[in-house]
Amino acid sequence: MLCYFDNSATTKCAPLVIEKMNEVMNEHYGNPSSLHNVGFDGEKMLSEARSIIAKSLKADQKEIIFTSGGTESNNMALLGSAMANKRAGRHIITSSIEHASVNAPLKMLEELDYEITYLPCDNNGTVSISELEDNIRDDTILVSIMHVNNEIGAVQPTEDIGRIIKKHNSNCLFHVDAIQSFGKYAINPKKMNIDLLSVSGHKIHGPKGSGFLYIKQGTKIKPIIYGGGQERGLRSGTENVYSQCGLGVAVSLMCDNMEENVKKLRTLKEHFVGRIKDMDFATINGLTNEQSAPNIVSVSIKDVRAEVVLHSLEEKEIYVSAGSACSSNKPAISKTLQAINVPKEMLDKTVRFSFSIYNTIEEIDYACDVLEDIIPKLMKYTRR
Amino acid sequence: MLCYFDNSATTKCAPLVIEKMNEVMNEHYGNPSSLHNVGFDGEKMLSEARSIIAKSLKADQKEIIFTSGGTESNNMALLGSAMANKRAGRHIITSSIEHASVNAPLKMLEELDYEITYLPCDNNGTVSISELEDNIRDDTILVSIMHVNNEIGAVQPTEDIGRIIKKHNSNCLFHVDAIQSFGKYAINPKKMNIDLLSVSGHKIHGPKGSGFLYIKQGTKIKPIIYGGGQERGLRSGTENVYSQCGLGVAVSLMCDNMEENVKKLRTLKEHFVGRIKDMDFATINGLTNEQSAPNIVSVSIKDVRAEVVLHSLEEKEIYVSAGSACSSNKPAISKTLQAINVPKEMLDKTVRFSFSIYNTIEEIDYACDVLEDIIPKLMKYTRR
Repeated sequence: MLCYFDNSATTKCAPLVIEKMNEVMNEHYGNPSSLHNVGFDGEKMLSEARSIIAKSLKADQKEIIFTSGGTESNNMALLGSAMANKRAGRHIITSSIEHASVNAPLKMLEELDYEITYLPCDNNGTVSISELEDNIRDDTILVSIMHVNNEIGAVQPTEDIGRIIKKHNSNCLFHVDAIQSFGKYAINPKKMNIDLLSVSGHKIHGPKGSGFLYIKQGTKIKPIIYGGGQERGLRSGTENVYSQCGLGVAVSLMCDNMEENVKKLRTLKEHFVGRIKDMDFATINGLTNEQSAPNIVSVSIKDVRAEVVLHSLEEKEIYVSAGSACSSNKPAISKTLQAINVPKEMLDKTVRFSFSIYNTIEEIDYACDVLEDIIPKLMKYTRR
Repeated sequence: MLCYFDNSATTKCAPLVIEKMNEVMNEHYGNPSSLHNVGFDGEKMLSEARSIIAKSLKADQKEIIFTSGGTESNNMALLGSAMANKRAGRHIITSSIEHASVNAPLKMLEELDYEITYLPCDNNGTVSISELEDNIRDDTILVSIMHVNNEIGAVQPTEDIGRIIKKHNSNCLFHVDAIQSFGKYAINPKKMNIDLLSVSGHKIHGPKGSGFLYIKQGTKIKPIIYGGGQERGLRSGTENVYSQCGLGVAVSLMCDNMEENVKKLRTLKEHFVGRIKDMDFATINGLTNEQSAPNIVSVSIKDVRAEVVLHSLEEKEIYVSAGSACSSNKPAISKTLQAINVPKEMLDKTVRFSFSIYNTIEEIDYACDVLEDIIPKLMKYTRR
């Protein structure tokens, strides 16, 4: 039984997404910048997708800037807003459990003399609100804190964070990496004081190469890619019409049925967590209740290295990830697991299970049966 | 009869490209960074595409960096190499007929105190080699000159340019925007002294959102998008596996049958040029012989504004572009047409016809019949 439990790394496109992409590739191939009907037709398709996305955030269409994916969205949010607002200050606050696509551009900004404050979090991965309050200054131009953590599923109190930022410095921008949360949580950027919000298509059964950055109207931001002036001058380059239309369908599928989808994911997760708790070789990192993401479970396995678990499960067609696995083939020690104080000897023994609405209870039972069968054998082996 | 003659703006995906994308979306959806088989399978598909592309340029696979398209490739080439080499100098040479995706990042670099020299060109759009020689200095870090111009089809003596650059300053990098030429000309970057070469998928019947930058091994360049370290650390973000695989198929289709394809395009162009020359209201800009691109013809129409021609042709299902139309819906006066000294009164009366291998002689005859019918009527109308 093939069990794909690596949905936080990437998801399979939904059939309706693929159908839409084919329709657009075959029938609406125009360049949206062309002044004739074929171009206008491409622009119309793109605009439909943009409208679906805007509606899902209760935002204006003008606030949705299409990008090539989550990494570009995060880069644009951080580099673009830091560059545009440097006269107001050079201090940026983030958390210690961000994704590489937030950490790496911030490192770049550090080289350009920006000052970055990394907030700690508790053992469940919740960022400290009081530390945030203590660190916001007049020259803080940006706070970037992810919504749902990709490795352990910790959910941040995004609405509280937004309120506190604006209370202390109303000019400070708030960026949220919502790549793991969008489609699973109702997000209203205006209500939550979010100025910039990153989303990726391929984490929600949309196409790879699709994504967007929500930019609140009036936000000062510079592009990071220059040219023909597409996307209101903020992201040049011929728009990836097919993929963004596919993303539009994925957003519909996720957001129109959010309650039902999340209920299904919670059922899967609860069942999995229940079975894992019966395994004395396994420890779950972070919360597992409604305060945690409905689809992510981080499990540390006694005495067996993550890669060994991963490849042993793979032999049974069960696919999980070691650590975050969003970085390119480099199994480095996870900063997130360190930040939540996972014991040192468990850092390289942690695997992530991430479910999708297409998974089933049967798959989870099968995977748990396999774990119960193989892990004790592997433990014996490593103890020799 | 639908005549899509705007192939320099975008092309329709070839059926085999769409087929490949479907295969990959349905069967190879893994994240290439994942350490399990599903991920490895995605990586394998990507690697196949990379191998096809590398072969087409007689390059190494390591020299091909996938991007989201031509605009990103040009931005990365210019911004990335300028940033990485600023200690060696801040002088950059380009031509006066580059695409917006080259001009705009160069404008950005000017703001960061780089000095840009814009070389003139003759009335056929050929960049002056002697002016290039006169302007290369010890602190020139980059020369960026496109291969085929998108508006008039002028072809630059790229091999000569490469030789001259390296003769005068062996450390100076040579970037070629090959977005309009790739697939129509045999390009051997090593032989031609090219260090950086930009290609876009959607100009060669590949998918929008696909493209690459050739980076000669050893070239000093910084990324413009940071994160998980994909593409050898040079372009982070989960790879757009489907689209890049589609691009691989498009590259095969274009490059494996290049001679035949170009012959077909030349036949179409020659037929079109022959008929245009019989129309006394029409003037062709630039060369039309083998020294020009096989698929692009720029035509100025006496007394009738380009938009009027465009929309009148559109009514007959003939799709062309006014000026370059690669910029977002902004019909600005073309810098290329100005640079080749098109008479002032013709600047806003110029349309571009750009053919693909899927066009036919019948389509061209139909379009020419329509031109001969409608233009004299429109001329009368505008003269009133």
